[in-house]
Amino acid sequence: MKINLYDTIAAISTPAGEGGISVLRLSGENAFPFTEKVFRRDSSGIKKIDLLNTATHTIHFGYIFDNSENNDLIDEVLISVFKSPNSYTGENVIEISSHGGFYIAQKILSVLINAGARNAEPGEFTKRAFLNGRIDLSQAEAVADLIKAKTDSAHSSSIKQLEGALSEFAHRTRQEIINITSLVELELDFAEEGLEFVKADDIKAMILDLKHKLIRITESYIAGKVIRDGVNLVIAGKPNSGKSSLFNYLLNKNRAIVSPVAGTTRDYIEENIIINGVLFNLIDTAGLRSSEDEIESEGIRRSFGKIDEADMILYLTDSAEDERSVNEDISYFESNFDKDKSVHVFSKCDLKKIISDKGTGISLLNEDTLDNLKRIMSDKVKSSFIPFSKDEIVLTNLRHKFCLENVIRSLDDALKSLEDKMSGEFISVDLRNALNHLGEITGEVTNDTILNNIFMNFCIGK
Amino acid sequence: MKINLYDTIAAISTPAGEGGISVLRLSGENAFPFTEKVFRRDSSGIKKIDLLNTATHTIHFGYIFDNSENNDLIDEVLISVFKSPNSYTGENVIEISSHGGFYIAQKILSVLINAGARNAEPGEFTKRAFLNGRIDLSQAEAVADLIKAKTDSAHSSSIKQLEGALSEFAHRTRQEIINITSLVELELDFAEEGLEFVKADDIKAMILDLKHKLIRITESYIAGKVIRDGVNLVIAGKPNSGKSSLFNYLLNKNRAIVSPVAGTTRDYIEENIIINGVLFNLIDTAGLRSSEDEIESEGIRRSFGKIDEADMILYLTDSAEDERSVNEDISYFESNFDKDKSVHVFSKCDLKKIISDKGTGISLLNEDTLDNLKRIMSDKVKSSFIPFSKDEIVLTNLRHKFCLENVIRSLDDALKSLEDKMSGEFISVDLRNALNHLGEITGEVTNDTILNNIFMNFCIGK
Repeated sequence: MKINLYDTIAAISTPAGEGGISVLRLSGENAFPFTEKVFRRDSSGIKKIDLLNTATHTIHFGYIFDNSENNDLIDEVLISVFKSPNSYTGENVIEISSHGGFYIAQKILSVLINAGARNAEPGEFTKRAFLNGRIDLSQAEAVADLIKAKTDSAHSSSIKQLEGALSEFAHRTRQEIINITSLVELELDFAEEGLEFVKADDIKAMILDLKHKLIRITESYIAGKVIRDGVNLVIAGKPNSGKSSLFNYLLNKNRAIVSPVAGTTRDYIEENIIINGVLFNLIDTAGLRSSEDEIESEGIRRSFGKIDEADMILYLTDSAEDERSVNEDISYFESNFDKDKSVHVFSKCDLKKIISDKGTGISLLNEDTLDNLKRIMSDKVKSSFIPFSKDEIVLTNLRHKFCLENVIRSLDDALKSLEDKMSGEFISVDLRNALNHLGEITGEVTNDTILNNIFMNFCIGK
Repeated sequence: MKINLYDTIAAISTPAGEGGISVLRLSGENAFPFTEKVFRRDSSGIKKIDLLNTATHTIHFGYIFDNSENNDLIDEVLISVFKSPNSYTGENVIEISSHGGFYIAQKILSVLINAGARNAEPGEFTKRAFLNGRIDLSQAEAVADLIKAKTDSAHSSSIKQLEGALSEFAHRTRQEIINITSLVELELDFAEEGLEFVKADDIKAMILDLKHKLIRITESYIAGKVIRDGVNLVIAGKPNSGKSSLFNYLLNKNRAIVSPVAGTTRDYIEENIIINGVLFNLIDTAGLRSSEDEIESEGIRRSFGKIDEADMILYLTDSAEDERSVNEDISYFESNFDKDKSVHVFSKCDLKKIISDKGTGISLLNEDTLDNLKRIMSDKVKSSFIPFSKDEIVLTNLRHKFCLENVIRSLDDALKSLEDKMSGEFISVDLRNALNHLGEITGEVTNDTILNNIFMNFCIGK
């Protein structure tokens, strides 16, 4: 869809749901006249407001009317006035703070649309902030991550990025590449046939050094992804092995129906939970068996799908079963599950004295066994990723990783050209490519497709 | 819990969830100093704000720090300053507008609590607005209803109440009772033995007239309840009669698992939907039969519970079954369901030519039959309640109904005293009781228990 980037947009900026306050945002050339159409200072609907002659960063009590034939009163509100360029988007902005509740906010939004505003696209306010030079692209992306943050580490990595840590790193790296390029181009001016041997070695060392720093940062992405999105953890196992009971225990609520009947769970159930600072997306699945029951079979098919997609699996075996069944289940686990991402859990271990040393015993009657399992879960997550210190930059965004990988690739090209004793012009071109890819991180180099992909993932109203 | 009504309270005022903006509210004596502790104008955390010397109704950009040893940066925010008495609560108020997302808002709230604020009770901001004389009690209650409004009629009845329609009615009625009381008391001054016969008749007529007006308004409560909370509509019937299919169709989404296997639905499922302007809480239930399956049986037990509580029931019979079964099901329906609140629906009517005239035929293959059912549903709701015009007051609150019923009871006492030719003092006491009960609506007469019951039902942050 082709949209005008400079018309006036409106959206509800607070989450849907019941709350004390909803906030709507209006940004663009006509934010003031559109507001003047529907806002009155008195409940009789007579006293207008003159926004051009109202100071920026001030708040005004009044009423929103629907601007229809009846001119029905919609709500008592506060409006906040932000004058260009001192606003989030850099344009004239009005924020309307209404009573909470989705209905009223929707109603006010439709009144604003009737007054002439357009529904904002997801992230369009932030996109305007970027296009108007208020923030760079990596900061815009940090806004989205900040909103989605669910843990301390997700929050601190995104606020760091919003405050410009990644931008600074990109600028520093940019400066280093420019320095190397200058050296190469300086040599070009003086040398007739390629670079001097000694200078080439110096340059090579500089590029290698830079490359290693960049590789270290791209490697942080796996940690970054877990920090941002959490670990998809599937609870799997034969029917009646205690999956739903463990699921409910970890969530600390009675979410899944539990019964002694095998095959109770059919639809899989997902819930988020933070364990020892790690965000898990827990997924309880239908027990794995061949079933005659059509609905259960569909559930089992979905279980296998979830296991395939999982970052981590808890495979439950009922340790109270007879020895043959338990041993069969151990073999099944060992031949079908990836050791690196799976934990074999022996449930109901209070009912059985001998616990296999092949896994971890738990009993819902023994808190210690469950604390132990939680520790195993969070440790496994932490150890699966390279440990990064608090001050290091952690990449949480796949796009940044791709950009840096392209930078590294261009540096490799430059190294290859150096080794092949190519003429300095070629090395210079490689280094300039690296600069371009680096510029994509902060948005100095960008295009519509990149922008659309980024802002598509924002919520509406931001 | 005993709480200090005048200390400084803090809460997140926007709904939980992802959105562009979260708003936190701080109200009380120390709202300004607590904010000064954690807010800085610069990201280095150096430049403080002096709120006493800051104008009311102004907005300031800055940063929230966690006030810990590290003084970690939490978020970039805007703060809005409201000085007593020109605020929602009448006290000094700060609103902090942060990036959306529940995590950040929670983090900022904990920073405010560390700074010395107390977590606000549900509705405590509005309670303070009431206690500080900013609004009366029926207006405070309208705020809660406004937030919960899901339909046009719910919205317009609560905004009317917020603007004081019910308060005005209470004041008018109050004046009428005072007038009657004056008449009675005036007569007392002049008459030695009770009231004159003619005067007594006049007074009786006035009281009766008032009583009828009040009865009319209390009768509006049933409509008001439906306007506010919606109609609990249970879809019931034998297994495989198409309940979940109809449920999914009405919701326009694939919510319940549907299969040709009888007994697919076990847990009942609830969803809200607005049909022709009426809010329905649709409840899909397990099919009614005797089952050997423990889980299904539990589901069926719950189905009967839901049927008992329902405002309205759609009872489905599979019209494609053989005639004997269909006739049995008709008898079952007729002997077990209350006609006034139940609709007998014959599903899958495309598979059968002869539809019983005992109910309504539907087919998911024929949109018209479903539109017809929807019309029947909404008409039944509308006709079940006394029709009220748009300008009439509709009581949506059970407490107001109880208050008015007590007023009516006191008026009846006065009428009885009049008939019994009691002395004017007695009549005067009855009328004064009526005044007291009326005062409970707006909160002129109130007590802690009433207040706690009212504000308990608010969301936190309002």
